[in-house]
Amino acid sequence: MKTMVMLSNHHVHLTKEACDILFGEEGITFHHYLAEENGPWASNEFVDVGGPKGTISHLRVLGPLRGYTQCELLRTDCFKLGVDPPVRNSGKLEGAAELTLYGPKGELTVPCGILAWRHIHIDRETLAEIGKSFGDFVQVRTEGDRALVFEKVALVPGGKGLLMHVDTEEGNAAGCANGDMLEVII
Amino acid sequence: MKTMVMLSNHHVHLTKEACDILFGEEGITFHHYLAEENGPWASNEFVDVGGPKGTISHLRVLGPLRGYTQCELLRTDCFKLGVDPPVRNSGKLEGAAELTLYGPKGELTVPCGILAWRHIHIDRETLAEIGKSFGDFVQVRTEGDRALVFEKVALVPGGKGLLMHVDTEEGNAAGCANGDMLEVII
Repeated sequence: MKTMVMLSNHHVHLTKEACDILFGEEGITFHHYLAEENGPWASNEFVDVGGPKGTISHLRVLGPLRGYTQCELLRTDCFKLGVDPPVRNSGKLEGAAELTLYGPKGELTVPCGILAWRHIHIDRETLAEIGKSFGDFVQVRTEGDRALVFEKVALVPGGKGLLMHVDTEEGNAAGCANGDMLEVII
Repeated sequence: MKTMVMLSNHHVHLTKEACDILFGEEGITFHHYLAEENGPWASNEFVDVGGPKGTISHLRVLGPLRGYTQCELLRTDCFKLGVDPPVRNSGKLEGAAELTLYGPKGELTVPCGILAWRHIHIDRETLAEIGKSFGDFVQVRTEGDRALVFEKVALVPGGKGLLMHVDTEEGNAAGCANGDMLEVII
């Protein structure tokens, strides 16, 4: 079985309340869809993010707004910020690193910093076909000079077929690019 | 069998001639040893690096000087620079990306940009013990939330025992840190 892969740079999800504080009445505005139409989208808005040791600038806010505020960091960001966040599935913010988000209209300090757990969005039919449940792990192999096998790739809901998300460091380590088709080991 | 791992950030090696052009008579000066005493060292000197699309600043020059000029990039640098360098063992500069190095005393444009091929420095005795030759590959497994198996890890000369080098993106993708002991799969 194959999955398409997409690489995610560091980015931010906001609640309505957080968005109001950071961006005021105008809120966030649509820039482009990340993958399929009517799915998640990149906004035109960015925040700076501060931690105990330093600040990183210009993290894009993704839409639509969510039920939680979450900052998905790269591990290299964490050294600059001075935080050691857990690796988590989206929305699982237990133990998330406390960060300050700086927007044009205000700032906000909340425990929201995580590293994203590598995962595949999979539909229920395909999940049943392979005899797995949401939350189970599979492995994914990449080819080429930087061939590797990602272990503990979580199966999560969302979308049609299979779509894997890794962060840019994971994708670069594996030598893969957006849209590559990777082998899933069940 | 276990190997210690060290993460390398992007960095530059210079020939005597390149060093003269970039830094003049003073050359590069010792800052600290990277690992064991009398091994490779970090200098106090940095260069900026330019490609067709952009420039990245502040890459550290490593000592001692070598028989070749080589810029070991992170893959994320390559998008900023606008280059697509090959993954190569150190000193194998066939097809290396042409880059301009900017020093305080001058600049230099040479084909020197590579991504480092992940490798383990291993001594001849241990190499013989495991029935391998220099240039052969092994696999290396990491544990934890970001567990993965690096394939095609090259065995190269240098040092005593085993010491694995990956770049910071590879190390971050695998959730490992300097000094971690990783499982070698022969």
